[in-house]
Amino acid sequence: MSWSLQEVSKHNNTKSCWVIINKKVYDVTDFLQEHPGGSSIILKYAGRDATGAYEPIHPSDALEKNLSPSQHLGPVDNDAVDSLDKAEASKKKTKDELRVEEFMKKRPPLNRIINLADMEDVAKQVLSYRAWAYYCSASDDEISLQENARAFQRFFFRARVMRPVSKCDPSTKILGFETSLPIFVSGSALAKLGHPLGEVNITKGCAPSKIIQMVSSNASLSYAEIAAARSPSQTLFFQFYKHKNDAIALNRIREIEQLGYKAIFLTVDAVVPSNRERDVRSPWVLDDQETGIKVYNDGEGTADTDPGLGVAGALIVNDDRDMTWEKTIPWLRSVTKLPIVIKGIQCVEDAILAAEAKVDGILLSNHGGRQLEYSLPPLEVLYRLQIQQPHIFDKLEVYIDGSVRRGTDVVKAVCLGAKAVGLGRPFLYAQSAYGEVGVRKIISILEREIITTMRLMGVAKIDELTPDLVERVDWQPVARSAKL
Amino acid sequence: MSWSLQEVSKHNNTKSCWVIINKKVYDVTDFLQEHPGGSSIILKYAGRDATGAYEPIHPSDALEKNLSPSQHLGPVDNDAVDSLDKAEASKKKTKDELRVEEFMKKRPPLNRIINLADMEDVAKQVLSYRAWAYYCSASDDEISLQENARAFQRFFFRARVMRPVSKCDPSTKILGFETSLPIFVSGSALAKLGHPLGEVNITKGCAPSKIIQMVSSNASLSYAEIAAARSPSQTLFFQFYKHKNDAIALNRIREIEQLGYKAIFLTVDAVVPSNRERDVRSPWVLDDQETGIKVYNDGEGTADTDPGLGVAGALIVNDDRDMTWEKTIPWLRSVTKLPIVIKGIQCVEDAILAAEAKVDGILLSNHGGRQLEYSLPPLEVLYRLQIQQPHIFDKLEVYIDGSVRRGTDVVKAVCLGAKAVGLGRPFLYAQSAYGEVGVRKIISILEREIITTMRLMGVAKIDELTPDLVERVDWQPVARSAKL
Amino acid sequence: MSWSLQEVSKHNNTKSCWVIINKKVYDVTDFLQEHPGGSSIILKYAGRDATGAYEPIHPSDALEKNLSPSQHLGPVDNDAVDSLDKAEASKKKTKDELRVEEFMKKRPPLNRIINLADMEDVAKQVLSYRAWAYYCSASDDEISLQENARAFQRFFFRARVMRPVSKCDPSTKILGFETSLPIFVSGSALAKLGHPLGEVNITKGCAPSKIIQMVSSNASLSYAEIAAARSPSQTLFFQFYKHKNDAIALNRIREIEQLGYKAIFLTVDAVVPSNRERDVRSPWVLDDQETGIKVYNDGEGTADTDPGLGVAGALIVNDDRDMTWEKTIPWLRSVTKLPIVIKGIQCVEDAILAAEAKVDGILLSNHGGRQLEYSLPPLEVLYRLQIQQPHIFDKLEVYIDGSVRRGTDVVKAVCLGAKAVGLGRPFLYAQSAYGEVGVRKIISILEREIITTMRLMGVAKIDELTPDLVERVDWQPVARSAKL
Amino acid sequence: MSWSLQEVSKHNNTKSCWVIINKKVYDVTDFLQEHPGGSSIILKYAGRDATGAYEPIHPSDALEKNLSPSQHLGPVDNDAVDSLDKAEASKKKTKDELRVEEFMKKRPPLNRIINLADMEDVAKQVLSYRAWAYYCSASDDEISLQENARAFQRFFFRARVMRPVSKCDPSTKILGFETSLPIFVSGSALAKLGHPLGEVNITKGCAPSKIIQMVSSNASLSYAEIAAARSPSQTLFFQFYKHKNDAIALNRIREIEQLGYKAIFLTVDAVVPSNRERDVRSPWVLDDQETGIKVYNDGEGTADTDPGLGVAGALIVNDDRDMTWEKTIPWLRSVTKLPIVIKGIQCVEDAILAAEAKVDGILLSNHGGRQLEYSLPPLEVLYRLQIQQPHIFDKLEVYIDGSVRRGTDVVKAVCLGAKAVGLGRPFLYAQSAYGEVGVRKIISILEREIITTMRLMGVAKIDELTPDLVERVDWQPVARSAKL
Repeated sequence: MSWSLQEVSKHNNTKSCWVIINKKVYDVTDFLQEHPGGSSIILKYAGRDATGAYEPIHPSDALEKNLSPSQHLGPVDNDAVDSLDKAEASKKKTKDELRVEEFMKKRPPLNRIINLADMEDVAKQVLSYRAWAYYCSASDDEISLQENARAFQRFFFRARVMRPVSKCDPSTKILGFETSLPIFVSGSALAKLGHPLGEVNITKGCAPSKIIQMVSSNASLSYAEIAAARSPSQTLFFQFYKHKNDAIALNRIREIEQLGYKAIFLTVDAVVPSNRERDVRSPWVLDDQETGIKVYNDGEGTADTDPGLGVAGALIVNDDRDMTWEKTIPWLRSVTKLPIVIKGIQCVEDAILAAEAKVDGILLSNHGGRQLEYSLPPLEVLYRLQIQQPHIFDKLEVYIDGSVRRGTDVVKAVCLGAKAVGLGRPFLYAQSAYGEVGVRKIISILEREIITTMRLMGVAKIDELTPDLVERVDWQPVARSAKL
Repeated sequence: MSWSLQEVSKHNNTKSCWVIINKKVYDVTDFLQEHPGGSSIILKYAGRDATGAYEPIHPSDALEKNLSPSQHLGPVDNDAVDSLDKAEASKKKTKDELRVEEFMKKRPPLNRIINLADMEDVAKQVLSYRAWAYYCSASDDEISLQENARAFQRFFFRARVMRPVSKCDPSTKILGFETSLPIFVSGSALAKLGHPLGEVNITKGCAPSKIIQMVSSNASLSYAEIAAARSPSQTLFFQFYKHKNDAIALNRIREIEQLGYKAIFLTVDAVVPSNRERDVRSPWVLDDQETGIKVYNDGEGTADTDPGLGVAGALIVNDDRDMTWEKTIPWLRSVTKLPIVIKGIQCVEDAILAAEAKVDGILLSNHGGRQLEYSLPPLEVLYRLQIQQPHIFDKLEVYIDGSVRRGTDVVKAVCLGAKAVGLGRPFLYAQSAYGEVGVRKIISILEREIITTMRLMGVAKIDELTPDLVERVDWQPVARSAKL
Repeated sequence: MSWSLQEVSKHNNTKSCWVIINKKVYDVTDFLQEHPGGSSIILKYAGRDATGAYEPIHPSDALEKNLSPSQHLGPVDNDAVDSLDKAEASKKKTKDELRVEEFMKKRPPLNRIINLADMEDVAKQVLSYRAWAYYCSASDDEISLQENARAFQRFFFRARVMRPVSKCDPSTKILGFETSLPIFVSGSALAKLGHPLGEVNITKGCAPSKIIQMVSSNASLSYAEIAAARSPSQTLFFQFYKHKNDAIALNRIREIEQLGYKAIFLTVDAVVPSNRERDVRSPWVLDDQETGIKVYNDGEGTADTDPGLGVAGALIVNDDRDMTWEKTIPWLRSVTKLPIVIKGIQCVEDAILAAEAKVDGILLSNHGGRQLEYSLPPLEVLYRLQIQQPHIFDKLEVYIDGSVRRGTDVVKAVCLGAKAVGLGRPFLYAQSAYGEVGVRKIISILEREIITTMRLMGVAKIDELTPDLVERVDWQPVARSAKL
Repeated sequence: MSWSLQEVSKHNNTKSCWVIINKKVYDVTDFLQEHPGGSSIILKYAGRDATGAYEPIHPSDALEKNLSPSQHLGPVDNDAVDSLDKAEASKKKTKDELRVEEFMKKRPPLNRIINLADMEDVAKQVLSYRAWAYYCSASDDEISLQENARAFQRFFFRARVMRPVSKCDPSTKILGFETSLPIFVSGSALAKLGHPLGEVNITKGCAPSKIIQMVSSNASLSYAEIAAARSPSQTLFFQFYKHKNDAIALNRIREIEQLGYKAIFLTVDAVVPSNRERDVRSPWVLDDQETGIKVYNDGEGTADTDPGLGVAGALIVNDDRDMTWEKTIPWLRSVTKLPIVIKGIQCVEDAILAAEAKVDGILLSNHGGRQLEYSLPPLEVLYRLQIQQPHIFDKLEVYIDGSVRRGTDVVKAVCLGAKAVGLGRPFLYAQSAYGEVGVRKIISILEREIITTMRLMGVAKIDELTPDLVERVDWQPVARSAKL
């Protein structure tokens, strides 16, 4: 059986809500209340084609996972196919789409990308404004985002000379798994916003160098698709947002265990949505750009509707807001044998509690400045941990992430005790800009920078990177300039 | 009896000075010397209509309170009414008025206002230049104003994770009175400059959320009008400028007691007018803008007349400059049973003296940077108080105000011991921009920001906000940018 | 006897060098080697009229003091007078002169000047570029100049409240001499560069308020002219550059003693000329501006001639470079009974030596940043002295100068132990901009600012300004903006 | 025998590779693998004239040293000479060459250069973009480069007064060799990039003032040519990059010993090439400038070729990466009697090791910010050494280099224990801008600045410059502005 557009269009309200996705019809009436992004965004497309809005932010198995077979109503009819194709073909491009199209004609060749800032520059132009705003946004005034980066600048090297460095090996292990560099891909959502192949670009790009990818619970591809893309010996970790319903949470764990993910990074710094203003404002920016002027007809100007949570907020509304050390860790330990890492530790005291809870690792992180504004920069927390509780580093592995952009950043963190350092946005930007080869490119840049830094410090192996090789200085260096 | 314009115009000097306000004639000859704003501003309108200058900065009961019945001379005659109406109708709009008019056509809808800086942006354009200059001005080079804000940036959070936060309650009490958030409206003068409904916009906007409004002695509505606008259970406090004449001061206390105000905030940081240059310069800015060029014909260029004190100076010229702990507090305690809070404490030593004087609370404040330039930022004073004299917090309630603009600011202050945090200008800006709903809007923004901050810190109740959750860092973060 | 221009023009070389000044002819052949500014500047005018270059930088008695009667050759003849008058009348104005002329048409009226920065703004436009460059210039990159000002910003007030301040008296004494404010005019050279009446503008402007003027050894009026301009009870001090020849130095002391100067400020921080680049470059700036383009015809581009020392260097070439505590102070004490103050102390150790040498006072100063680049800001030296050697303040009077621009600056220094605070450039700027009334204006501004600051600090008398009222903070506040 | 262009052109590949340099033909087939700059740059010119690329970066003896006699194939034939001359004559100038040509018409006369920043400004315009990028570039984001300079700003003078300074002598000795100032030329490569006479400009410019030149291993003139240019009593030092092959390294030592170089500065901070992005990007900048637009035709945009190491990387690829204290210093000591200085010490610990290794001196340096990014500024290392290990200064001579631009910089370093201070780029810039007289010019500027600074500090001799005369302050002064 197939459906005409006219028939579908009748189901355009909360009582009966159908949508078309990829020319198939779905009855989402019952799902409206469960949708993490809220019902209003679905109702906007009730009785209509929702493919354009749905596709970039949902993994391929989202419909299977969330709708029962009876809610899969089947394909649209041939007339509808024609009609949708015509609509697609005649759709006028937005100014933002034209901007990207224009830029693609002069995108620099990959060999002109010589550092991660170059890659970000390309990404900013390749990305739709909406995607860029989602990727780069951070909380409130984006102070923590910027301070994460500025923290690295306050640590200088006390380089040693006259040490043999012709052989220099930056490889190490994370939770026992090999990596060619002390870095990993920190989980970040919605890679498809930046490139149609999405997270798989990262998976494939990481394969040759054995860089470990932590896959987000909110990946825009299914966990299975990503797992399928990996090479035989490649390691994947899983960034775990725990659903408030333990049973649903357990399903997710079982799924990724079966897919061969090797560790669980339980995320604890994002129990509620934060305030990412660039993301919230992005539809208005696009609207204003499209209409060309900023004139509002708001009657009294005082109509007040909730601007919503932006993309990010929608993704975590069903997560567990009441996790505790006493309850959550023992439960997690009881249901899985995978190593457990707590992602989002933000002070020394919680690092101690994590060690007491006998987890396998902690990721010092403030979610790239995207959650709690004025959370201490992870590098500063790492430094305090090294000064105040150095024995912690013997009890579990410690990682950090947030605004890592240079080999020197990585080496500083490793000197201060980090087993490895996560990067999130840089991988999103790289795959958005050039797909899989973009990912390979930034890994090779970081490899060169890390090795050069180690050698110029007189260091040939990762475990020679010790706290005495860095010094926290009492002034703030000049900011890294956008471009020399 | 009614008066012709011709008759009125004869009384245009210090010997006989009449003015017309709202088409009624007043004999202000005897009042010239008592006028807080000085006689010269009245004489400028002697024998003429003064409504335009009088209205926005005087409460409705000012004429009743200050002039005897015999000085109320009665209405102008019908010809005068016609004539005044015509003059009003034919009055050419100033460039500044046209600017505001133009902006109002494109004022953004309220739902695009997502933080307090957005609200301030709108206010700046909605306000007359004069009003804006009065509201935003601060002393000398406005260093303390800016440092008040920068102080908040030096305090970072040491957030805790794995704590239940699904239920998060930001409500608290101030002097025993309930409030839904640990904030209050800090007294600020002359709301009518920004919106014809003035302070009442704030009163009504605060009602639904039980935010307590501290009403200024220099409100542009009468204390009675404001009291009348409150909802049955709503709490009002009173910001008290003590007149140098105890009897007059007592009258004011009796009035606000009878109107049901619940506490007295005795202001001690504004015993003399300060130097607010933006305010002083504002008439010149407008003149120059109106004439279009900056060419002065000053003969030798050396004529020197006193530029005056600006709006602010005029308001406090009769206040008591010789208050002391020994005299003023016992007197105040003897005449009223209302809780007494000292507003304007600027160092630890005076906090101790206040505790010894057994007042109910202190508001650490430098008057929003509007009085003593280079007075320490209130947050820094609070921090010193917490470090040096933590027992003070058991003896009285401590509040701060000054450049609070984000939920994180509020939470930091509460962590350091503040019972609540006052905001002044943001409420003036909100009511200027959108009236009552503007006030509601910023309260709802702050509520969202405060709750999000608390949850992301692992905190569910106000009394869990403790000093160990913040850390003063030894660098100055990047400034908040005007716009992301 | 009178001279023709033709006759004079023959004496145009080192063997016979005549110049015309104010239509009189002088034989300066023998003086060429003694001229502090060097012979080349004189030879540039040899055989010609030198009035324009001579007048603004020499006191009226310079010719008397330096040339013997026989070198005064008498007036030019009538033809020469005509000729010189015509030359003067037909002289084409330079672009810089036209700029000033244009500005004078729109100079703001004095009552629009509300702080010292306003006054400086006017002065910058009233002054010839050359004069402005001489006045504002400082050493090398002008870091000390700027740091002198920034130092004041690091000191905040710990204001006290509830203290009687209706009566507030900012008067004090300097070396026993009365002053209405704790400020004085710090000696600075060449006031005639800015205004034809020169230093006398300052003298007369200071009279009503009893502000004490320290007159520079390099004043552009004679010490006698300045003394003659003072009011009966007015106090003058003398800034003393000691000539390397003791006898010549003694002559100068005798002269100023007889004229009734009340104290000697022996300047010790300017024993050699410094590198004031703005001053050195100013003639090139003017040349380039006049010719309109920057094209140089320098052959190989490698001709190298000494650019000279600028105006400042010339003034001190004959000063004593070998003063010592052992020799110079006893000598000075032996020849005069006037109080002796050492001007230019730059560290705590030398403050101690000064006390041991039993001088009457020290002026902590780095010459307004015009001598040793990276000399510590005087306020920082004062602070160290107060912390490390508080007893010094009992042994002699301590003053500071350098970048004092606000009443708060003055009050901070007095809190830290300064008996008074000197201002140099502000007085030059004020008299350049508006003459005598300009001087009165900045004194009245400072008076208002000082009194307001004292009152808002809870202070009614100068000796209540104590170190506990200020706090040195550990961050650098935002810079004072040019204009709000 | 002579060669036709046609014949030469056949040898255009790795199997047989000939190039023409200065109209002579060379067989570089066997040398391809040994070329420090890699084979690809040679192959670009295989079978063709390579003079333009070869000349500015190779010393005159490079062909003799690297090719056997049989590889010198002899001159091109007459037709070829004609043809090459015509090609040269008809070569179209690039936009960059035209820019320089245009600037030379208006290069300022030398006497307008009054500080080292002025000289750098001229150099920037006189230099080809490629040369400028090579000279000024530093590692990564050029933070260490900038921090080297900012470090000097944190040290202020505690100047002394009343000390005799009419006689002031800034001369001193370095390793026993006389110098008129406590400065020396720090080794830097490739002076011919900036001026056809190259390093010899520096040699001749230093002669009159006895400033010692340290000649780089990578000089663009032969060590012999430079030695030949020196005056009879002039001292040269040698900056030694040790080849990984000890025998080759020894050859170099023997050569410079025989040429009369007086000391060996063993460079240890550049064992591997660093990441100098400005240098890497410079050919692209020029390409884009020449073509006028930035449109790339990169197919998929993902072709990735190695951008190479830039000029700098090529120079050191054969250097010893496995030097150690145990092996390298004893070997060096065993083969030469020249004083040995370690260039590139970056922390206190290595200064101690150097003293234990009994070398004659250490140069605290981070290679002008060109090697390890975030290496501590040398002045900060010197300060730590002075505080923590003052006795080291008795055991060996300590020097620093890096961003020294003012006499005050030099004096600060000497106060903190430096025997002398090296300058690199300023000499390259000076010789590029004006040749030999440019070099003389900056020496005379530094002499004036050093003497003035010493005198204004109350110091007459170098050994009176002691640590108590400087103070490290706890704030960062304002940046030196480009131009006053």
